[in-house]
Amino acid sequence: MSDHKHFTLYTNVEAANGWKVAIVLRELGLTYDSVYLDFTKHEHKSPEYLKLNPNGRIPALIDHENDDFVLWESDAILVYLVERYDTDHKLSAATDAERALQNQWLFFQASGQGPYFGQFFWFSFFHPEKIPSAVERYKKETERVLSVLDSVLSKKEWLVASKPTIADLSFVTWNNGAFATIVGHDAVVDKFPAVYKWHMALCSRPAVKSVTDLRTALQK
Amino acid sequence: MSDHKHFTLYTNVEAANGWKVAIVLRELGLTYDSVYLDFTKHEHKSPEYLKLNPNGRIPALIDHENDDFVLWESDAILVYLVERYDTDHKLSAATDAERALQNQWLFFQASGQGPYFGQFFWFSFFHPEKIPSAVERYKKETERVLSVLDSVLSKKEWLVASKPTIADLSFVTWNNGAFATIVGHDAVVDKFPAVYKWHMALCSRPAVKSVTDLRTALQK
Repeated sequence: MSDHKHFTLYTNVEAANGWKVAIVLRELGLTYDSVYLDFTKHEHKSPEYLKLNPNGRIPALIDHENDDFVLWESDAILVYLVERYDTDHKLSAATDAERALQNQWLFFQASGQGPYFGQFFWFSFFHPEKIPSAVERYKKETERVLSVLDSVLSKKEWLVASKPTIADLSFVTWNNGAFATIVGHDAVVDKFPAVYKWHMALCSRPAVKSVTDLRTALQK
Repeated sequence: MSDHKHFTLYTNVEAANGWKVAIVLRELGLTYDSVYLDFTKHEHKSPEYLKLNPNGRIPALIDHENDDFVLWESDAILVYLVERYDTDHKLSAATDAERALQNQWLFFQASGQGPYFGQFFWFSFFHPEKIPSAVERYKKETERVLSVLDSVLSKKEWLVASKPTIADLSFVTWNNGAFATIVGHDAVVDKFPAVYKWHMALCSRPAVKSVTDLRTALQK
């Protein structure tokens, strides 16, 4: 399956965290095969997949040019990719201080943006009963996360190191969901203008655009 | 306030993520002053604190011996501390591969353990209405996270590098809450024996014990 490509990416058509990794692979010009796991068939809970990722979630990445090294957790994968394959720091922090701040924003994405946005989708579309106060809670938390980003991005163009890095890119795919479904495009423009400008600048990058186009095509 | 200590740690008596940083500071023999923010007075949302941490949450750390460098997000702080002050890798990964796996587990702590355990506490104690199905959801997610850890720790003693690292230590303070409140001590021993053994080994370390004792004393 992956004899000719550098990586195999285990992912899912619907899930934001897999597309996040695809974006950074493309940004760095790295080749990969995608294996799209079908959640309705519980392929992410199969014994074979759990050997790669005991957490039973996507993404997981195999680096065939590093002795088939296996890694999961999307933001840990982003850090691995730039530390090994972005040694001239085109897309990543170059100093110790910048690297610490890059980690700070990646952990904010992982602990703040992803889980809260994800809980909104859970209570909106998957929870067995309708609980308006839970949906409302996670809409408010989503807006809180966007307000934190807006407070910072109204004073500078990028989160770290005065250039786009994996810290910025890590927010793109979940923000697409927030803009389309949780908060609404017009409300984002109105309430979080700096976030909107930053997000649109990221979305215009060829690697991001190609992933967005592919995602749209596969979800049709 | 902090003329004589290496660090100032902005934290809170009740919150797991601040104690997590205190544990690693003590493990590394680093000196610090604690500033305990009073959430009931919204001290974590004050203009002064938001200048340090625009996310308005704890912890935040100032490193007075690195030009008053400021960092927030607890797991980013752990990585910073070992990269700068654990250069002989007593408590951290020493190779590139181990460092990637250390990050993987830290991101699992940040995105899996912390948020899900935290939502259990929210819906159990703070949400304005009682929603048993939400409490049940987060109890199940807590057990799922513990089951992932148990599947790994039943085959090896530590998460990374065959020794205790910040990856293991990052789970201690939230697991204390899970054992005491979410799952219950006896159920943990019964269902997740490898997690229980690992957790107790971590808790017996002098640095962890001193922080647990301090936390207990301050919460009385």
